Amino acid sequence: MTREEIPAAIDALKGLDPGIHDKDFLLTWQYPEATIRFVLRAARILEALVQANISTRLFETGLGLSIFRDKSTRTRYAFRAGCNLLGLMTEELDESTSQVVHGETVRETATMIGFLTEAIGIRDDMFLGEGHRYMMQVSSALCESHLARVLPQRPAVINLQCDLDHPTQSLADLGHLISTFGGLDPLKGRKLAMTWAYSPSYGKPLSVPQGVVALMARFGMHVVLAHPEGYDLVEEPLAAARRFAAESGGSFRVVGSMEEAFDGADAVYPKSWAPADVMRERTRLLRSGEQARLAALESEALATNAKFKDWECNDALMARTKGGAALYMHCLPADVTDVSCDSGEVSRSVFERARLDTYRQAAHKPFVIAAMILATRLREPASALERCLEAARPRRPA
Amino acid sequence: MTREEIPAAIDALKGLDPGIHDKDFLLTWQYPEATIRFVLRAARILEALVQANISTRLFETGLGLSIFRDKSTRTRYAFRAGCNLLGLMTEELDESTSQVVHGETVRETATMIGFLTEAIGIRDDMFLGEGHRYMMQVSSALCESHLARVLPQRPAVINLQCDLDHPTQSLADLGHLISTFGGLDPLKGRKLAMTWAYSPSYGKPLSVPQGVVALMARFGMHVVLAHPEGYDLVEEPLAAARRFAAESGGSFRVVGSMEEAFDGADAVYPKSWAPADVMRERTRLLRSGEQARLAALESEALATNAKFKDWECNDALMARTKGGAALYMHCLPADVTDVSCDSGEVSRSVFERARLDTYRQAAHKPFVIAAMILATRLREPASALERCLEAARPRRPA
Amino acid sequence: MTREEIPAAIDALKGLDPGIHDKDFLLTWQYPEATIRFVLRAARILEALVQANISTRLFETGLGLSIFRDKSTRTRYAFRAGCNLLGLMTEELDESTSQVVHGETVRETATMIGFLTEAIGIRDDMFLGEGHRYMMQVSSALCESHLARVLPQRPAVINLQCDLDHPTQSLADLGHLISTFGGLDPLKGRKLAMTWAYSPSYGKPLSVPQGVVALMARFGMHVVLAHPEGYDLVEEPLAAARRFAAESGGSFRVVGSMEEAFDGADAVYPKSWAPADVMRERTRLLRSGEQARLAALESEALATNAKFKDWECNDALMARTKGGAALYMHCLPADVTDVSCDSGEVSRSVFERARLDTYRQAAHKPFVIAAMILATRLREPASALERCLEAARPRRPA
Repeated sequence: MTREEIPAAIDALKGLDPGIHDKDFLLTWQYPEATIRFVLRAARILEALVQANISTRLFETGLGLSIFRDKSTRTRYAFRAGCNLLGLMTEELDESTSQVVHGETVRETATMIGFLTEAIGIRDDMFLGEGHRYMMQVSSALCESHLARVLPQRPAVINLQCDLDHPTQSLADLGHLISTFGGLDPLKGRKLAMTWAYSPSYGKPLSVPQGVVALMARFGMHVVLAHPEGYDLVEEPLAAARRFAAESGGSFRVVGSMEEAFDGADAVYPKSWAPADVMRERTRLLRSGEQARLAALESEALATNAKFKDWECNDALMARTKGGAALYMHCLPADVTDVSCDSGEVSRSVFERARLDTYRQAAHKPFVIAAMILATRLREPASALERCLEAARPRRPA
Repeated sequence: MTREEIPAAIDALKGLDPGIHDKDFLLTWQYPEATIRFVLRAARILEALVQANISTRLFETGLGLSIFRDKSTRTRYAFRAGCNLLGLMTEELDESTSQVVHGETVRETATMIGFLTEAIGIRDDMFLGEGHRYMMQVSSALCESHLARVLPQRPAVINLQCDLDHPTQSLADLGHLISTFGGLDPLKGRKLAMTWAYSPSYGKPLSVPQGVVALMARFGMHVVLAHPEGYDLVEEPLAAARRFAAESGGSFRVVGSMEEAFDGADAVYPKSWAPADVMRERTRLLRSGEQARLAALESEALATNAKFKDWECNDALMARTKGGAALYMHCLPADVTDVSCDSGEVSRSVFERARLDTYRQAAHKPFVIAAMILATRLREPASALERCLEAARPRRPA
Repeated sequence: MTREEIPAAIDALKGLDPGIHDKDFLLTWQYPEATIRFVLRAARILEALVQANISTRLFETGLGLSIFRDKSTRTRYAFRAGCNLLGLMTEELDESTSQVVHGETVRETATMIGFLTEAIGIRDDMFLGEGHRYMMQVSSALCESHLARVLPQRPAVINLQCDLDHPTQSLADLGHLISTFGGLDPLKGRKLAMTWAYSPSYGKPLSVPQGVVALMARFGMHVVLAHPEGYDLVEEPLAAARRFAAESGGSFRVVGSMEEAFDGADAVYPKSWAPADVMRERTRLLRSGEQARLAALESEALATNAKFKDWECNDALMARTKGGAALYMHCLPADVTDVSCDSGEVSRSVFERARLDTYRQAAHKPFVIAAMILATRLREPASALERCLEAARPRRPA
């Protein structure tokens, strides 16, 4: 989007009601298509405003808090950068140095960090059946405290990855598909292969493939999910994918080989994840403290995993895609054979060719997060962006 | 306070000289009543400005540094939020990753983190006889460096809880009493029960009860402190409470049962703390590295503690208060029986009824901290708030 | 510099091309003299603007990221304060909570934290042969991603101490020499003694002495480096010192005693460091995991170290300097005999006399870092400072 195109884009944005003012952003499939379209377009406008060196510092003061219950580089940074882009100061709640370790309840902590806060970003993706539930607990505590006028405003919970969905990732992914293929409409009829791939670790979260199939099936894509027997995902997002595919004129099906998924694909997304059953059992054993059984489960899972080393995205597989030139996608970091491991999700030559493009895929994330904050916190977000454009305060000096 | 009432409140604030410009905020009993009244009123004005969506970003740049030598959620967040409300960026000094572990002196570190800093918030409440002393060391180092023109300005030390006082808490508590009873004057003659209560842990700081009795006795309240034999507090704040009570027409006495303290009380503050003698001995043993004796001391303290499980704030006790409807107060997190522990400071039913109100009590803290920064850092804080009101820049977009 | 002198200083700054726009600040000896002069002058102007209470908040939004692979108080704080002075929000990348522990490559991480970032400050001084190399890897990854238009701007890498140089320190040191002796020109012909001194620890980085000799030899000073046999530094900065000394009319020589170095010196900089050979071997053993050999190396190094306890800067040595009144310099924290250790780099009486002055030396650092950011990130930094002066927005309220 050039600077000249920004005014029209903002006008078009006015016609979209995100519908989540004073709410959260948790699972993409909960929201109507207008919410998704709003976030995608607002993210592109924000990116164009940065390119045009126009400040989008909309908040004079206010906080963006984050809670990371798992490691993060990209999403942590993107949350900070997205908040900063709007004028919010960020802080991270480190549970180990807070009263959480003294048994403080979730509902209490949520309010205590909410007084002057606009957004609370949470990553909780380690335990199947828990991450989304935790975010809902935080959300309902914030609602209660806001209704009781304890909180002067109602911070939005932004899902920075839970056990079900990873919306800041899947929307960045969709933004990347849009940039690559020239819009949302041109995605109709295109084939996306979301496939499992081998990694030396066995326990990667399920939220990326779940989020991707549920989101992409909404826009008329032919989504094919491929994985070895047993590597099932959680049902809720798969059901969403089937429903959306039926509505959008796309399709969604599950197959048992990378080859079938890659054949004629426009885009491929090969990525490791753990079987849902293993993850559920792992959560149970961790909670009950059954160390010996946990060790046994892990050995077994690694042994099973090792049977599928041939699920690697390599040149031979890429050659089967449309024109041999499908878009290679990854949420990063990828396990690259002979770079970060002996045998991984993708061969060195495929990854090296696509590498800068995967960085572009990630580059959407700070803007997607900022757009989610606009959608949840502002009554009239398009007008706010319009005022930024009119004021045209330089974001950085020449 | 409504938006219409803000101008008159600011005018009234002009008549109060906080008297601590270019100084610290350490122990409430060191300051004249005007200082206390200034902080309370400025905090309410700041809160009203937030409600009216008026920016109080008074600093273009500048830092608020914090040093936490103990766990914190509320105060840590409140310090960050209070700083951000005035435009200061916050940072935390993590002593484990700094040269402090290489033996750097306190006076040197204090200056090194003071160059462009407006406020240094410190929590050091673990060791009786040390926390306040540490803050005084930091304070005198900052004075020396400012006088020597090493520091272009003199950062204020803000006590975020020491061994003697917890002023950001007690002033938030007083703000809550004012909101509940309709002002400072209506507190005269009311009875406040600050009582010990049982907790499964034995070593909670003494600074909250000490700070509360010293502060509330100043405003004509009848303050009753209750604790089991042996759970004595430090003398300095108790002496202050006696002196202030005599001056204000209130009273201060110490009793040996919750029942006596609760009888006819307008407000109750049941909370666990450790005996001062135990804490002094604990500090000594920790410093001398006498591990075996320390373990013995802890077992003994827990055994003594367990004798007083009946010191629980429950419905029967609440029924003895004025109209059976005293204000229940707590600095949070509370040890709630059957919620966060088997047997604690307060029964589930009492706490659940009061829960949202304890959140309101905590909600004052960011504004109290911001008011302390205004009082210590600005020569004419009331005029600065007046300029914010006149400019009426929106704090957040619509 | 008084407020009245600022306009002329800014005019003079316009005549200096820093020559590092869209580049990094890594090793002082890589840059022409104009770069060095620019940073020194811009730092002084920034300091004068702070003294005049004029805001230099040039960035509306943007991030300053830091990565500390070793402990830091002063430099960490100075980076944050310098960024904040220009309007950048700071964040620290904690590698232990990021995907770096999952084997993410340096080039990928660099881009992932670069999207809306203006400066990335890095300390990596522990392993000889690695720190500078790591910064170069980050730098070339940022270049690649910027050229590929993945990054909308190219963050500058700011060396916050590597194995070769410590430019934010040496430029603060030079700023301190300029303040003390009245300018850069008055430094010509003065003698600076950069000498080894005893410390109970054996493994302090070499970058401070290396950076100091290479920088000060450039401005006509007679630089004498003194150390016990075996405590050699890395060749590259020594070669730079020899070359610069020849060009500037100064001199650079290495001697074997503190006495010889101190004789008639105008300034002395006594400081411990480890022998380059020991540090190289230590790096090798750490990387190969040879624990037993590492322990042996450390014992041996400590034993050798202990032979040189008489390398202490004391009153007798200071008496040999010019007029017995040389400027005592240290990057802090110093190992002070009878203060932070039994036997250290400097006697208590010498250090106590110089203490506040060493704080002044450190005080230059936030401004030096901000000046480096101006030099690397702005096309016309002098004009930007001029606009700040003209706008004269108060940095802090009265």
